Amino acid sequence: MTERINDPNAPARRDEIEGEGAIRGTARMEAFADGVFAIAFTLPIVEIVLPSTDSDGALLGAELGELVPEYAGYILASTVIGLYWVQHHFSGAIFRTTGHWFVIATVAFLAAIGFIAFPARVLAEHFADVAARPAAAHYWVISLTLLSLTWLLKWSVGVSHGHIDARLERDYAERLTRNFRIVAALNVVAAVLVFFHWQAGLALSGLLMAWLLLPPETPRYITEAPVIEGEG
Amino acid sequence: MTERINDPNAPARRDEIEGEGAIRGTARMEAFADGVFAIAFTLPIVEIVLPSTDSDGALLGAELGELVPEYAGYILASTVIGLYWVQHHFSGAIFRTTGHWFVIATVAFLAAIGFIAFPARVLAEHFADVAARPAAAHYWVISLTLLSLTWLLKWSVGVSHGHIDARLERDYAERLTRNFRIVAALNVVAAVLVFFHWQAGLALSGLLMAWLLLPPETPRYITEAPVIEGEG
Amino acid sequence: MTERINDPNAPARRDEIEGEGAIRGTARMEAFADGVFAIAFTLPIVEIVLPSTDSDGALLGAELGELVPEYAGYILASTVIGLYWVQHHFSGAIFRTTGHWFVIATVAFLAAIGFIAFPARVLAEHFADVAARPAAAHYWVISLTLLSLTWLLKWSVGVSHGHIDARLERDYAERLTRNFRIVAALNVVAAVLVFFHWQAGLALSGLLMAWLLLPPETPRYITEAPVIEGEG
Amino acid sequence: MTERINDPNAPARRDEIEGEGAIRGTARMEAFADGVFAIAFTLPIVEIVLPSTDSDGALLGAELGELVPEYAGYILASTVIGLYWVQHHFSGAIFRTTGHWFVIATVAFLAAIGFIAFPARVLAEHFADVAARPAAAHYWVISLTLLSLTWLLKWSVGVSHGHIDARLERDYAERLTRNFRIVAALNVVAAVLVFFHWQAGLALSGLLMAWLLLPPETPRYITEAPVIEGEG
Repeated sequence: MTERINDPNAPARRDEIEGEGAIRGTARMEAFADGVFAIAFTLPIVEIVLPSTDSDGALLGAELGELVPEYAGYILASTVIGLYWVQHHFSGAIFRTTGHWFVIATVAFLAAIGFIAFPARVLAEHFADVAARPAAAHYWVISLTLLSLTWLLKWSVGVSHGHIDARLERDYAERLTRNFRIVAALNVVAAVLVFFHWQAGLALSGLLMAWLLLPPETPRYITEAPVIEGEG
Repeated sequence: MTERINDPNAPARRDEIEGEGAIRGTARMEAFADGVFAIAFTLPIVEIVLPSTDSDGALLGAELGELVPEYAGYILASTVIGLYWVQHHFSGAIFRTTGHWFVIATVAFLAAIGFIAFPARVLAEHFADVAARPAAAHYWVISLTLLSLTWLLKWSVGVSHGHIDARLERDYAERLTRNFRIVAALNVVAAVLVFFHWQAGLALSGLLMAWLLLPPETPRYITEAPVIEGEG
Repeated sequence: MTERINDPNAPARRDEIEGEGAIRGTARMEAFADGVFAIAFTLPIVEIVLPSTDSDGALLGAELGELVPEYAGYILASTVIGLYWVQHHFSGAIFRTTGHWFVIATVAFLAAIGFIAFPARVLAEHFADVAARPAAAHYWVISLTLLSLTWLLKWSVGVSHGHIDARLERDYAERLTRNFRIVAALNVVAAVLVFFHWQAGLALSGLLMAWLLLPPETPRYITEAPVIEGEG
Repeated sequence: MTERINDPNAPARRDEIEGEGAIRGTARMEAFADGVFAIAFTLPIVEIVLPSTDSDGALLGAELGELVPEYAGYILASTVIGLYWVQHHFSGAIFRTTGHWFVIATVAFLAAIGFIAFPARVLAEHFADVAARPAAAHYWVISLTLLSLTWLLKWSVGVSHGHIDARLERDYAERLTRNFRIVAALNVVAAVLVFFHWQAGLALSGLLMAWLLLPPETPRYITEAPVIEGEG
């Protein structure tokens, strides 16, 4: 995968690139990804089980309070999926086209997004049980690491196949690539660490998620800033 | 969070704003939000359990009739999520760009939208049990209040970070902000009231939802009315 | 609700109409509706229960065969929701704007779309039981009638609030309105008939669904045919 | 279904074609399809059952490991749905318009996409049981064949009703049609073969899925390559 040199003034569609199927704009790939994100984000609510109407009604308040681990699982999944969506939304302004291998890599990343609510529930619902904590932490941290690696894969395929907006400053995209590699590497560290000291692995993994809360660097363009999605 | 003064004739994209990542149009954020709304709106149907095919077939009609609380939960969730979607759809014509903190606040609001079908079921399915009513009402009113507060958060972040369409009359956006603050404050009142007199709290909360049925004020523009989404 | 007379050459956005909130193009309302349709269409798969891995593996083929009522429910729901989506897709080229009451009516129609998979399962899964057939038929036909009435409501609100593309020939929209009224009226007839002779009510209801298989009349424009969604 | 000869320089919208309802661009049909794909892709996660919090917490790691068949079912469904989405995404650049029968055929294809996660679970979760393997393989291969046939139906209806972009080289679309026919025919061979030698049928079916991993041929245009979705 060699990085292609783009002419910043060339049109986005480049059919002269053989072997990639139809090079398209990013709108529909973003739409599919937004759909998967939206569903993964919303589905966890079906896992919260309504207190039975057969039990004593006066206990309903207490029963709703006992659902705290379920609420925590919902919030944890929302946070991780939401923060990745924010990062994905941001990167949608960085890429300008899609091609075959880029959409394949995106599908792999989205499969990991669709899965992540399950480990979130494992961690949240089993955390109250001291004996279950180490296994729950292993599972969660490894899952987050796989998610981070599929993100790096998607990004790297997009960059190496020339889908980055050629009007961006070259340094800018390189800084992003370096950042994503560092984060993925630290996630791998967390996934190893969690087997030696699960609290430390979990903490490192949590810090790496918190990093996504920070706003990414503003894009810098060689030419004038383009308008993204008819902003009127 | 200071309100930025915009030149109404400036382009929507303002890359000179540092520390916000890529400022983008609202199309994809709206698409993600529409996805979450659509899923939250449609998912509750999976919670209605089909009468068993093992029981006497002649009883099917009666069994379907006994599902009234489930139907009520479906309708209640549809109403709340639908009305918030209408308000969100409306506000999509008010904002012109997105940025990092605005999408973060939107994610928080959407997590509350995704959750609201659960309290709707709690209220609808437990309401027939007199002993369960107060707790069900507490839970429902508090959930609606949290939803209302996340809406105000999203709106306020959008406004204070300069994402409002600068071509709108300044007074117009200020009136909307005031309205949303009043509604959120009244929701907080309802959430306190419901612990003293659950019927009153529930009634106030219901009135605040009914307010969403009223059409919002038509936007007023400084310059000529812009075309939103290529209306040809 | 009086029908407004539109100038066909006027722009789609008409902010001079007071009391309707922001008049917008149909893109985002269609997107929300497409989302609800897509979810309602796809969700029924979760209701098909996998044969248990605890039973004798040699019986798997037979167990999968016994799921025929579940498959029928899936196909029935897909057919009804799919055909309504086709009709909705078609009408998306007829409307040009949205407003407050039109989106409210659309939400009511979409709540009925989200619900329809449940009656489809009631009919398909209980049909094998002769004693359950009348009640299943009542439930299904009434549900389809309510769906048909919400469609008529949505259409009528859209037409009466001036959201129809003013470039269409006036006769064209009037013919569509008449057709939808006839179909809704016949659905009401089916919903009454099903209580006297369930087979006849079911048959009439089925014919009315089959009517949606027929292609609708091609739109006729006063001015030249507009391009819908940048078709390049 | 006779293939219509298109003037490559004609506009995409051709209202003079009677009996097809409103001919529209592909944007909204793609959006509905993307929605169904996204949901079908993401839903399988709800089928993975969380280990009970009532059992011994020290066993959690082992219980999570025993879910391997469930993980395999998730990955299998993601792979098939993901690869079909990639193919569908590609073909979205080939079609230029939609019409009544094309959307009907698309709905049939999407119903098959929505269903395919169920056979994936049948194969993955029952594969460990030697006695269940043949029936699981029959079910899976037949389901994939039906999916392949609905794809061919959708493609053929799109081509024969003149929805292909007329600016494409005629040979190009014909090569694609021939390829899809060969793949569908080989899927039918696999569906027959699987009843005589299930391992061979399964292997052939797997190879046909793997074929989707290969990038499709780059489109060739008579006129200059068009820009797809405003790529600015």
